[in-house]
Amino acid sequence: MADTLVDVPAREPGDVLGAYSERSEYVHIARIPEAGPGVRNVDPVDAINSKAPLDQFVGTITPSDLHYVRSHAGTPNIDPAKHRVLVHGMVAKPLVLTMADLRAMPSISRLAFLECTGNGWENWKTAPDDVTVQNTHGLVSTHEWTGVPLSFLLDLVGVDRASRWMLAEGDDGAAVARSIPLTDEVIGEAMLAYGQNGEPLRPAHGFPLRLFIPGFEGNLSIKWLRRLKFGDQPFMTRWETARYTQLLTNGKARQFQLRQEVNSVITSPSGMMQISPGYNRVTGLAWSGYGKIDWVEVSADGAKTWNRARLNEPVLSKAQTRFDLDWVWDGKPTKIVSRSADEKGNVQPGRKSFIAAMGENALFHYSAQQTWSIDAAGKVRNVLD
Amino acid sequence: MADTLVDVPAREPGDVLGAYSERSEYVHIARIPEAGPGVRNVDPVDAINSKAPLDQFVGTITPSDLHYVRSHAGTPNIDPAKHRVLVHGMVAKPLVLTMADLRAMPSISRLAFLECTGNGWENWKTAPDDVTVQNTHGLVSTHEWTGVPLSFLLDLVGVDRASRWMLAEGDDGAAVARSIPLTDEVIGEAMLAYGQNGEPLRPAHGFPLRLFIPGFEGNLSIKWLRRLKFGDQPFMTRWETARYTQLLTNGKARQFQLRQEVNSVITSPSGMMQISPGYNRVTGLAWSGYGKIDWVEVSADGAKTWNRARLNEPVLSKAQTRFDLDWVWDGKPTKIVSRSADEKGNVQPGRKSFIAAMGENALFHYSAQQTWSIDAAGKVRNVLD
Repeated sequence: MADTLVDVPAREPGDVLGAYSERSEYVHIARIPEAGPGVRNVDPVDAINSKAPLDQFVGTITPSDLHYVRSHAGTPNIDPAKHRVLVHGMVAKPLVLTMADLRAMPSISRLAFLECTGNGWENWKTAPDDVTVQNTHGLVSTHEWTGVPLSFLLDLVGVDRASRWMLAEGDDGAAVARSIPLTDEVIGEAMLAYGQNGEPLRPAHGFPLRLFIPGFEGNLSIKWLRRLKFGDQPFMTRWETARYTQLLTNGKARQFQLRQEVNSVITSPSGMMQISPGYNRVTGLAWSGYGKIDWVEVSADGAKTWNRARLNEPVLSKAQTRFDLDWVWDGKPTKIVSRSADEKGNVQPGRKSFIAAMGENALFHYSAQQTWSIDAAGKVRNVLD
Repeated sequence: MADTLVDVPAREPGDVLGAYSERSEYVHIARIPEAGPGVRNVDPVDAINSKAPLDQFVGTITPSDLHYVRSHAGTPNIDPAKHRVLVHGMVAKPLVLTMADLRAMPSISRLAFLECTGNGWENWKTAPDDVTVQNTHGLVSTHEWTGVPLSFLLDLVGVDRASRWMLAEGDDGAAVARSIPLTDEVIGEAMLAYGQNGEPLRPAHGFPLRLFIPGFEGNLSIKWLRRLKFGDQPFMTRWETARYTQLLTNGKARQFQLRQEVNSVITSPSGMMQISPGYNRVTGLAWSGYGKIDWVEVSADGAKTWNRARLNEPVLSKAQTRFDLDWVWDGKPTKIVSRSADEKGNVQPGRKSFIAAMGENALFHYSAQQTWSIDAAGKVRNVLD
């Protein structure tokens, strides 16, 4: 605690009230654009993703302008009055929808995470020790998303019962297009989203319209949505043949590994932070594409013993859950690590068992436990364990 | 639906990925600063509040830069490294806390509304017919707030059991200070908040620290918090003698009417909107300082008959709840109105019974049902009914 008393406050008027509440000049919080895994400090034109500063976030909601971005051809600037969405294929009544059409339809809002399937791969491939949690895990965020339930649209166009797949295509320069299985879960939970955290989508996140599929790979939640086509088999776009496949230990590639796994990471103390002996609050985020987080455990002795963390309520399905735990550091070098489990019984694996199962060829779905080492000087570093 | 097919998209790179996701140039969403009830288009230096555009929001969360503001001496620019909070009075161990102290303590996050007790008084006093819902109800917002539980601080300083009141004082030019009753509810739910929607508070909302008391008058959630003092009776600051008292029909003034009542408003269609005959989605927001919203009903015939609206899940205690209802307008002039009830059985009153009980002298806690008239041309207007 401080040893000086408070000063008498300045009794003078402050800044005028405006149309927007800007950030304090004393707050420095920003994403990091990268040109590839670990390729930082790049020319902006080469950036392919921009990572969220998890180490500076509190609570569970990601600020609207700091939600992570992963795009294949930059951000298109779309006039919503001219935007159209074609819905066709195995349907009784193909439609072309305007944004006004969509805004007039029933809508739902839901707090849910979105995660790039490449999140975490630094520790699969390169594992530098001088990275922050923004570098290692900054491709996941949580927003309140608002839009038209996919189920409403399916009824509107009269989708053929034999249609088991949906192609979604974006209106960006890369025309990203993915085949999405029409499971009961997807039909029940997907939405055509036009809102993020209460306001219209921002261009980097798909303005004026994106698909949003809770719990699945971020690239399925197609931004700048321009087309939905229904069929009885996957459409085999290059995004699911050349791009988003998972190379396994046996040399074969797995297609359509679509769900994001149970995961967690300690955001404080985390990479490149400096701590002192004594009381330290350990806090982080946990999430699962399967549903609600059931529990989170934290180890402060390199995964030898574990303690149950507190979960901040409400714990929502497929949303990030904040956890924390009181910890007194004795000043000796150690390692801290978290692991989580979801309501379906999935438990986040340690790195060794994860690598044993997945090999080192794969690019996506890295969800192993994250270990941070702390040296005698209190410096926190990324470590593979 | 549109009658033209989609164009082939431009296959060219979009804007580069940056540190922040800015709004689209096609989105025009902003607060309205006012110099007093209904005093719009003012010199910014005269603004005393700035109202949130409820008519443009979707979902339940208010964007961080559009949360309403009501301040008595503008926005101070505080260096968090120099900020101190004095905790004293009837305590065993008075303390002066730094922001670093507070950031190291256990914290909680909670989605909850904040409402200025003056919200809605246009319809008590002036009732113009050309206002929007931003004008009539724009002094309420919902955020995820993060901070240290008040209960933790009470334990830390060892508050005397005989202390039943807490004085909270702000570090702005007006030094706003309020006495807050230390009920079990306040002790259990209040926090010293440093986060809003995942990031540090913005200056207009109390950076670096504010009190947050879910369900109670916004002015109790003291911004730029610099002092908490504990005592066995209210401190009778000018804010609870001259300012925030309620003038009743009998000429007496009621002090300490602190809780925000059950309330609701239709945000679309709402004031100054233009609708067309046929299908119209009716949507709005409901909230109560007593707990969860139990139900919302909507009337499309001037409060003669009512229909139950859908509530968006999860319905959280003391947070705004989004409701909606399908409606087919026959093109004839009518009036639409909503009413809500909370889990404690409180039901939002009609305007006539509300005025009969409260009279027309009062300034605060206007929570009567809001009626919008719709003329044969589809124009929506504010009306007293």
